[in-house]
Amino acid sequence: MPTALQRDTDDPLAHKRNEFLLPPRGVYLDGNSLGCLPLSARQRARELIEQQWGLDLIKSWNSHSWIDLPQRCGEKIAPLIGAAPNQVICCDSISVNLFKILSVALQIQTGRTTVLSTHTNFPTDLYTVQGLQNLLGEQRCRLQLVHDDCLESALQSDVAVLLLSHVDFRTGRVNDMRRLTDMAHQHGVLVVWDLAHSAGAMPVLLDECQVDFAVGCGYKYLNGGPGAPAFIYVAKRHQAGMRQPLSGWMGHKAPFEFDTQYTPADGMQQFLSGTPPVLSMSVLDAALDVFTDVDAVQLRRKSLALTDLFIEQVNARPVLSELQLISPAEHTQRGSQLAWRHPEAWAICQALIARHIIGDFRAPDILRFGFSPLYLSYQDVVHSVDELEQVMRNGDYKQPQFQVRAKVT
Amino acid sequence: MPTALQRDTDDPLAHKRNEFLLPPRGVYLDGNSLGCLPLSARQRARELIEQQWGLDLIKSWNSHSWIDLPQRCGEKIAPLIGAAPNQVICCDSISVNLFKILSVALQIQTGRTTVLSTHTNFPTDLYTVQGLQNLLGEQRCRLQLVHDDCLESALQSDVAVLLLSHVDFRTGRVNDMRRLTDMAHQHGVLVVWDLAHSAGAMPVLLDECQVDFAVGCGYKYLNGGPGAPAFIYVAKRHQAGMRQPLSGWMGHKAPFEFDTQYTPADGMQQFLSGTPPVLSMSVLDAALDVFTDVDAVQLRRKSLALTDLFIEQVNARPVLSELQLISPAEHTQRGSQLAWRHPEAWAICQALIARHIIGDFRAPDILRFGFSPLYLSYQDVVHSVDELEQVMRNGDYKQPQFQVRAKVT
Repeated sequence: MPTALQRDTDDPLAHKRNEFLLPPRGVYLDGNSLGCLPLSARQRARELIEQQWGLDLIKSWNSHSWIDLPQRCGEKIAPLIGAAPNQVICCDSISVNLFKILSVALQIQTGRTTVLSTHTNFPTDLYTVQGLQNLLGEQRCRLQLVHDDCLESALQSDVAVLLLSHVDFRTGRVNDMRRLTDMAHQHGVLVVWDLAHSAGAMPVLLDECQVDFAVGCGYKYLNGGPGAPAFIYVAKRHQAGMRQPLSGWMGHKAPFEFDTQYTPADGMQQFLSGTPPVLSMSVLDAALDVFTDVDAVQLRRKSLALTDLFIEQVNARPVLSELQLISPAEHTQRGSQLAWRHPEAWAICQALIARHIIGDFRAPDILRFGFSPLYLSYQDVVHSVDELEQVMRNGDYKQPQFQVRAKVT
Repeated sequence: MPTALQRDTDDPLAHKRNEFLLPPRGVYLDGNSLGCLPLSARQRARELIEQQWGLDLIKSWNSHSWIDLPQRCGEKIAPLIGAAPNQVICCDSISVNLFKILSVALQIQTGRTTVLSTHTNFPTDLYTVQGLQNLLGEQRCRLQLVHDDCLESALQSDVAVLLLSHVDFRTGRVNDMRRLTDMAHQHGVLVVWDLAHSAGAMPVLLDECQVDFAVGCGYKYLNGGPGAPAFIYVAKRHQAGMRQPLSGWMGHKAPFEFDTQYTPADGMQQFLSGTPPVLSMSVLDAALDVFTDVDAVQLRRKSLALTDLFIEQVNARPVLSELQLISPAEHTQRGSQLAWRHPEAWAICQALIARHIIGDFRAPDILRFGFSPLYLSYQDVVHSVDELEQVMRNGDYKQPQFQVRAKVT
């Protein structure tokens, strides 16, 4: 068995770490909530503020191509999610984008009204359906939630859309995109995939799996910065004649003609609504350059090796046996994160943070660690488990200061 | 008549100019499209990238209060638009926010379906209604457009909402908020005001005028940076029981409980959908501090004095008589901008830009100048008109390079 040091030496992605600003101490295991700062993004932020906004001002819409940012970011994300050109655009948040996508999907599925999802899906995805249902009435849109293993039997003739997350935000379990998409299509159901916890961490094959629609997030494994804009994928075959409801001037065929009548732009541009947050989107644009020379298969291989090693290290330490792994033990069924249950998960998470090991807590009792293969090392993994062992062995987490709950958890 | 220099010396707002990074040459008359960079925003951007994102990462949601940004920005904007606390929140774009607001307003106005607006309103406002109409069907939402002087006669019993811009984006004409709001209320109609071209440039009295709803923009006179997030105002009396349709986790009563059922937060927080673009919003938050010691009446007085002087200077130069003023000559009817028609408006605008006088063009033939009283001087005005005179006298604008149209106009 090679040592962690040896594995780092042999790691073909090891050099990517130098393209990030990393916290000076400890290990950051929360890239699945907020990715670290790429140096390219830092550089862009400086240019953007000092030169583009500060000096060039309004001219930058043309001279620094602000106007093309949504398309440009979309085309940079496309290869990471297995999408041919002209199917991805960057805009708004996942919640707002899902509203647009679900409206379009329901429009295509005349006569069908149910949006099927699972109890474990990320809540904002479900809230979006509930908002649409509340606006349109149950006779036009109805959310149905089932347990993960009841999906097939629930695919009845009223189901218009199957809405799923590619990777479960709590457990890290991967949904089989190809199998579930095929299954839905066999029942005449369109599929919307939420890629928040997969894009940038593992290969996603949207075109190959014949996915209909997808949304995803810019601030997790894509490292676009806090609250970075999200993205939308619409398969080419669904783009003709679609009409998304959040029509705004940036999605108009000719925004600067200031016509009183909305005429949607061709293709993905229609999904733009208002003026995009240029600062956030330009920084994402630069952050995506980190992926230019990265091979998705290599990325996945390292991600799995990191999580395998973490589990192995935890299992080798008896004091950690009170942590109950809720991520799949079989690694092909995992995304790039691991989760353990423990009644004191909150306090354990805080005690680890005090030791500069940054993971996160998910209610009610989950300790969650994300593994961004671009900037984590095998030695980071071993060091993190060492610290976790200390926290549990010493009972650090029982100290009162680690019991206090913060606003954001 | 005091000289421009004398007026600058006597200007009680003159010192505010030092709080901005201004282009090193020329005069920037496009603060109504994109405000200049406040030094406070530049400083925040640096801290945000280097420290908050770069080093503190996910902890910043608590330690740097990212989670409170939408409320904090909202409460900083509130006094600028005459709103008592807990009625303003910062989020998304005007287009997306109007969709939320119009849905809420139509919900209140049971049985009424028409959204009344004018042909001259900013197009994205109209597109939003068209999107909602397309989604809900004409039996639930219908856009009616009339000429400005036909508004009163159009206020029939089917009108649910009157949707107007406070200041016309082309001509700079001010709509009388108090009179039009009263008139609408007398007919049982709710009013939505778009403050894009007034907030930050002149006093707005939402509470006093008993306005129902308003939206506005962060990147014009509020100087929040390109594509800065927008804001929403909802009068306290309409907040109970409202339900906006773009429900996302940030608008949930307890987002971090990850409940599958959406329960809207009390008050304005419900208007949040997905995760906000923190980089853009934090920069806006810092930019708003420029207004802390600014008196709205002083701001208005200077804005009117600047535009009066510009008109006076234009009228005093015979060669400029071929420009046709389309802004109201009577200054109380104007916002903080001026517009002239000329068949060669595009080329004149380009020729002025070549002389570092930055205005903008609005199709088909409008030359538009914005006057941000925080960073413009009386000498700037005189210098701008001097340059305009040169452009027209020399016929600069006839040169071929000024005839080429750019992507964004």
